Amino acid sequence: MNLRNLKGTKDFLPEEQIYRYKIRRVCEEIFQKYAYIPMETPILNYFELLASKYAGGAEVLKEVFRLKDQGERELALRYDLTVPFAKVIGMNPYLTLPFKRYEIGKVFRDGPVKTGRMREFTQCDVDVTGIKSMMAEAELLTILVEVFEQLSLDITIQYNNRKLLRGILSGVGVKEERINKVILILDKMEKVGVSEVSRELGENGVDSKTTSQILKALRFKEEDSGNKFEFFLNSFDNQAVKEGVKELRELNEYLQILSLSNRVKFNPFLARGLDFYTGTVYEAFLIDHRITSSVAAGGRYDRIIGDLLANGREYPVVGLSFGLDVIYRALKLNGEQAIRASADVYIIPIGTIRESLELANQLRQDRIAVEIEMDNRKLKKSLAYANKKGIPLVIILGENELKADILKIKNMLTGENSEVVRSELTPYLRSLIPKPGWNLT
Amino acid sequence: MNLRNLKGTKDFLPEEQIYRYKIRRVCEEIFQKYAYIPMETPILNYFELLASKYAGGAEVLKEVFRLKDQGERELALRYDLTVPFAKVIGMNPYLTLPFKRYEIGKVFRDGPVKTGRMREFTQCDVDVTGIKSMMAEAELLTILVEVFEQLSLDITIQYNNRKLLRGILSGVGVKEERINKVILILDKMEKVGVSEVSRELGENGVDSKTTSQILKALRFKEEDSGNKFEFFLNSFDNQAVKEGVKELRELNEYLQILSLSNRVKFNPFLARGLDFYTGTVYEAFLIDHRITSSVAAGGRYDRIIGDLLANGREYPVVGLSFGLDVIYRALKLNGEQAIRASADVYIIPIGTIRESLELANQLRQDRIAVEIEMDNRKLKKSLAYANKKGIPLVIILGENELKADILKIKNMLTGENSEVVRSELTPYLRSLIPKPGWNLT
Repeated sequence: MNLRNLKGTKDFLPEEQIYRYKIRRVCEEIFQKYAYIPMETPILNYFELLASKYAGGAEVLKEVFRLKDQGERELALRYDLTVPFAKVIGMNPYLTLPFKRYEIGKVFRDGPVKTGRMREFTQCDVDVTGIKSMMAEAELLTILVEVFEQLSLDITIQYNNRKLLRGILSGVGVKEERINKVILILDKMEKVGVSEVSRELGENGVDSKTTSQILKALRFKEEDSGNKFEFFLNSFDNQAVKEGVKELRELNEYLQILSLSNRVKFNPFLARGLDFYTGTVYEAFLIDHRITSSVAAGGRYDRIIGDLLANGREYPVVGLSFGLDVIYRALKLNGEQAIRASADVYIIPIGTIRESLELANQLRQDRIAVEIEMDNRKLKKSLAYANKKGIPLVIILGENELKADILKIKNMLTGENSEVVRSELTPYLRSLIPKPGWNLT
Repeated sequence: MNLRNLKGTKDFLPEEQIYRYKIRRVCEEIFQKYAYIPMETPILNYFELLASKYAGGAEVLKEVFRLKDQGERELALRYDLTVPFAKVIGMNPYLTLPFKRYEIGKVFRDGPVKTGRMREFTQCDVDVTGIKSMMAEAELLTILVEVFEQLSLDITIQYNNRKLLRGILSGVGVKEERINKVILILDKMEKVGVSEVSRELGENGVDSKTTSQILKALRFKEEDSGNKFEFFLNSFDNQAVKEGVKELRELNEYLQILSLSNRVKFNPFLARGLDFYTGTVYEAFLIDHRITSSVAAGGRYDRIIGDLLANGREYPVVGLSFGLDVIYRALKLNGEQAIRASADVYIIPIGTIRESLELANQLRQDRIAVEIEMDNRKLKKSLAYANKKGIPLVIILGENELKADILKIKNMLTGENSEVVRSELTPYLRSLIPKPGWNLT
């Protein structure tokens, strides 16, 4: 058989997985500091949930992996963690609000495979439901900034407001049923440029006059930010624009308090691909553009739960999603090195299996990671193995050492040999193990 | 829409997920101490890999979730983490051996849903390749015992050897092509009893004389263990029985050194469901039988990689798999309580949004988990919320406190109120936060 992976999927060997654990750990520690706690939802879902017109929308639906179980039920693999989160809120009406959770898990999209675009990938999502105030957005943006600071990756954050965008589009006369599609096209502005956006708008029934009105309306300049979006209020007199500007101003107030104003940039074209966003949207990119897709993104989606439940209620929800795989690639491009070897100490028994096993277990009880030679290999081969694996310390345990009650330590990093009495072994090894010792969990 | 989960899948809300994180953490810390490091393989696989006759076998194949991608490729969701591990070893011929890895991930089986049998569940697998010696089995059994000790769950471990079992079956005349099926039937002995096993053997072409020979041959008594499996050597004179007994004796020697002899019990009927095992097999059960399915299991499978690669080579591999979901249910049945609330401190701003946000971030920098009231609720409602969520400490920050540069702390567990000057806040809070403070990561 030709052993291979499906295109768009990948094995992560330990030297890669160590990075991914680091990212995961950084995310989780920060999420927890902000009082978000973990939750887990199934990968397998009823197709009708994911295909709901209130969920991700037609674009993402094209990329859903569908399957049936033995009972011929129509199922699908989740394409994000947001719709499952909305489902949980909808199914659990007695949750204490606000409800703050995070989830880290695999999602699947059967789309074209490009550099860095996988078909099976891991998202780290943090969401809060029950908060109408823009403090929720401000909190998630703080988390966003903190995660990338911890990872030493320089990012820029763009943000926008869907109410504003919808208001402008309806103000220039785009028909309601076309607005979602037009928003998706405008979202590509940074990537494909004005002429391609205009062409696509034309293809989708927007006449050239309306197109130029849209482009003019959205031509927001940096210097306009001083007047707090007056520009839009002056150009359009509808409720959606007013609400959008009000929300943007409120958000900006919190961002200022949190000293984040200079970390974010207003982009009136920004929309995010998914249909369900209703207010603020934001997206983070690497400053050096070594990876063009976003590394984290999210926004407010106040209607999906009420729509799924068909009760017409608004359930305020704001979310933020980190792409573990794309962040991993960014760290790799930065040349970050794996943090440590699989073990701190390698024990080579020379006719002392029993005592070596006992020693290994004693050290493990002291929380030192120990590998023991299990294949009865020659000393030279065993040392070569420890070297290749980057294990810093080797203990060769022969009968002489047992008799003398001392242990011989070989430091593989310096080449030095030293001896220590048994009773002082653990603190001595600790002093030799390179810092920072890590613990992957 | 009727919001619901597919039968055999489940949402884990935070109060449940906390247990699951604890199990995961215990497993990972112990795996790492034994020098196993993390790896990750895709959930989506080519169907032909999982359906290979050297993989899990016909029984598990019936339960595979199959699907196609847009390119009409025949795919399937993995049903375990073992076959993907074998695939990785096969695809990476230059790995340094021994290669010790663990993987924690979702697996899928489209089987009948019974109590505790999910169709989407999480396994924690730890495997080593490259070790022929039974020290590998002994190491994994040590890990098995340590994990359940840490989780305070009392288990019993059964073990057997497939070579022995195959040797006995061929010794009494069971035809080679029937042996796998017969082994699967015998494996159910503890669950269904002698008469049902005999009936099923008959149904599968084993005559009653052979059946009674099998049952007699496997009637191993505890008192026979003293003679180190002489019983089998005396009854059968074939190579497989000899090798099986040799391996069992070697394993027992290591288990004795590791003081594990009284933790394991030889069960000559034990086989484990999957086809690929070639030597030692083991399975752990709760002593109190509150859950009848095994909570962890594994064994040696030396041939799968060579068979997948069709190079006829032996790649010694031994593995151990923990069922996260079944262990979670066991802990829950034990009535274990969730360890802590989502936050250590809840800050209620009274007209002090700016200062409260600053205070929250200062405490988070000190690694204290802080939630801040974001919905401008009345004080009474906010306190009720903190109480309901079990958050132990509340800071109510009004203008008076700001002026006096002191902070008022309400201890929700004792009802006491106290004051502290700002500069001493963090150590003071730390002294009040109930121990053990946990960190989920």
